[in-house]
Amino acid sequence: MGNSSRIVTLLTDFGLRDHYVASMKGVMLSLNPDLHFVDISHLIPPQDIFTAAFTLGQAAPCFPLRTIHLAVVDPGVGTARKALVASAGGHYFVAPDNGILSYISSAFEDFSVYEITSDHYFRKPISSTFHGRDVFAPIAGWLSKDIPLRQLGPQLENCVRLKIPRPTKLRDTLMQAAVLAVDQFGNLVTNLKPEDLPVYGSSEIRTCRVLAGKREITSFRRTFGEGKPGELFLVPGSSGYLEIVMREGSAAAELGLKPGAPIGVVLA
Amino acid sequence: MGNSSRIVTLLTDFGLRDHYVASMKGVMLSLNPDLHFVDISHLIPPQDIFTAAFTLGQAAPCFPLRTIHLAVVDPGVGTARKALVASAGGHYFVAPDNGILSYISSAFEDFSVYEITSDHYFRKPISSTFHGRDVFAPIAGWLSKDIPLRQLGPQLENCVRLKIPRPTKLRDTLMQAAVLAVDQFGNLVTNLKPEDLPVYGSSEIRTCRVLAGKREITSFRRTFGEGKPGELFLVPGSSGYLEIVMREGSAAAELGLKPGAPIGVVLA
Amino acid sequence: MGNSSRIVTLLTDFGLRDHYVASMKGVMLSLNPDLHFVDISHLIPPQDIFTAAFTLGQAAPCFPLRTIHLAVVDPGVGTARKALVASAGGHYFVAPDNGILSYISSAFEDFSVYEITSDHYFRKPISSTFHGRDVFAPIAGWLSKDIPLRQLGPQLENCVRLKIPRPTKLRDTLMQAAVLAVDQFGNLVTNLKPEDLPVYGSSEIRTCRVLAGKREITSFRRTFGEGKPGELFLVPGSSGYLEIVMREGSAAAELGLKPGAPIGVVLA
Repeated sequence: MGNSSRIVTLLTDFGLRDHYVASMKGVMLSLNPDLHFVDISHLIPPQDIFTAAFTLGQAAPCFPLRTIHLAVVDPGVGTARKALVASAGGHYFVAPDNGILSYISSAFEDFSVYEITSDHYFRKPISSTFHGRDVFAPIAGWLSKDIPLRQLGPQLENCVRLKIPRPTKLRDTLMQAAVLAVDQFGNLVTNLKPEDLPVYGSSEIRTCRVLAGKREITSFRRTFGEGKPGELFLVPGSSGYLEIVMREGSAAAELGLKPGAPIGVVLA
Repeated sequence: MGNSSRIVTLLTDFGLRDHYVASMKGVMLSLNPDLHFVDISHLIPPQDIFTAAFTLGQAAPCFPLRTIHLAVVDPGVGTARKALVASAGGHYFVAPDNGILSYISSAFEDFSVYEITSDHYFRKPISSTFHGRDVFAPIAGWLSKDIPLRQLGPQLENCVRLKIPRPTKLRDTLMQAAVLAVDQFGNLVTNLKPEDLPVYGSSEIRTCRVLAGKREITSFRRTFGEGKPGELFLVPGSSGYLEIVMREGSAAAELGLKPGAPIGVVLA
Repeated sequence: MGNSSRIVTLLTDFGLRDHYVASMKGVMLSLNPDLHFVDISHLIPPQDIFTAAFTLGQAAPCFPLRTIHLAVVDPGVGTARKALVASAGGHYFVAPDNGILSYISSAFEDFSVYEITSDHYFRKPISSTFHGRDVFAPIAGWLSKDIPLRQLGPQLENCVRLKIPRPTKLRDTLMQAAVLAVDQFGNLVTNLKPEDLPVYGSSEIRTCRVLAGKREITSFRRTFGEGKPGELFLVPGSSGYLEIVMREGSAAAELGLKPGAPIGVVLA
């Protein structure tokens, strides 16, 4: 295989019961029988681009260079939204133009993106509801055969980007932050890094409180195991961000918070 | 690998929690460590041969020639039902004789089927409850090593076939159709093709109504996105059939219909 | 690849929605792009080491020699629990030291186990919550490149072992047995082998009754299909053990029993 791409990851909201994901893989294998698939997730909440973008941003950088990432959460299927291929950090991405690449485009300075216009590479007839199989999978298959991105269509100056919230200092003692993601266990990934909170990041004798939902959280732990069952607390998560969690419980259910929800940090 | 079969798909109702699917894969890899697996689904509703057959019929043709499709939804395990290998359209199939190959046998004229009688190839001891691991997986493993089908047992004239309903014109203005499948989102795949309905298929100024459950559907869309939230409508689906769907809702739940349910079409 | 390990199985309680499993696979592929993954399960009930150990004990022996089994159900992540590599029966295992290898260590006399102390092989920085990605996956990746186990750390005399219950004769007419596992369909795998019960194992004219939950079971079948819907009965299962099952129902729900629950056998 030399230098070419053999690994293809898949990220969709197609679920695991129906034939949809397998049909996409069959289409790709028909173009290149040497592909190796890794499922990132097919259980993204239906049409939840924000969660899909976060999940892709977490998983993709763990893969080797030249991996092709196929991400199809596509509420706009059948409309005029563009289809994209992109390269970033030595990885390739195939996705609809709806913001699903937002974490990737902000993480890699060399992000470059092309619109797929050359329908020569599509599966025919193209259904109006399943571009995963008919548009995106064939493009991933062809990419694995080292077709240059520019052969698929024109380079774009820009593409749809979600607004990823960053922590903002409102006053010297108050910061606005947000929930980036909620995992299946109800852990809330915030956009705060440990160094943003004096209790983690500095030796200053300052405390803080986190305002989330209608609750005030004042418990800050180094590891999940240090928390008491039923207690809401913060802990540095594996994504590099602080998480609001609850042992033997769902912080998301307890607080009623979803991705994008604002939280406050009071620096006392 | 030359010309041999390296790709094996799996379709079962074994679920994703227990060790069953992995045990089947381990048995196959023990026979041929170069196999590449693609899961079609393991979440077929328990013992639902009709849904399994539809799902296999949708996914299998997307795969490259010489793929081996292992389909084990097997309510008759431990009884005298036959075990089958078949070839059709350049693909191979391994399955119990219960109708699970019905869409394949009707789609491919070159369908030929053999009973597996040579227990030489089975895993011993053969459990009475898990022929997926002890009978079907080893056969798939051996098939991948280019053993001829006729070496496994005698060719059969016929095998169990499900009755797949076809649309029938009852009168000039009335057609009886049926639900072929319900996907996990509650979309109902009918056995109607777009050309069966004048609103899609012809330029004649004729309308139609679809009678489903206790409802009358008069909304016909080209794409899913054109529908209004909460509205029941028809749309050409990715399977080539018309689907009865509901944006942000489950048409199956709304109508109380399951695979096999009859629907009516009034051509006004 | 010659003689080296190319197949890696994964067993976790990380679920299928989030990026966790894919991130582990990406880390391994970054070390060895030729790996072939087989998921045993990612739906082990959270932190249920007993079920994880049983599942691994069932699946692992089906795989070819030199398979690497990565098992991460790890309630002690971030604490001082050891990280292990082991070899047994020609297979390799990577897991936390919490008993998850108990069925393996009791099944294979050549079980040998090492503590992973050489953090040279870890992914940096090591998160406190996701050793699956940062510790165990990299070790599995390195193992596939034929690094000797002893290079990872010192051999251990022993490791944490779960108490796997064995049937015990309390009196000539009474045996204490137990539930080893409950599968997703609610079938109860007992620790009884068919030969333990006179109705299966001998020609003696003796009957028996099984006491489970608050019920007395007197129905013993050879195959699942012989049972009547709604009836609780015993049947030889694919694991080699007798199972308490119910057709079209959940024996576990009916009896209120979980893994580890005691059951009685009255030999009349």
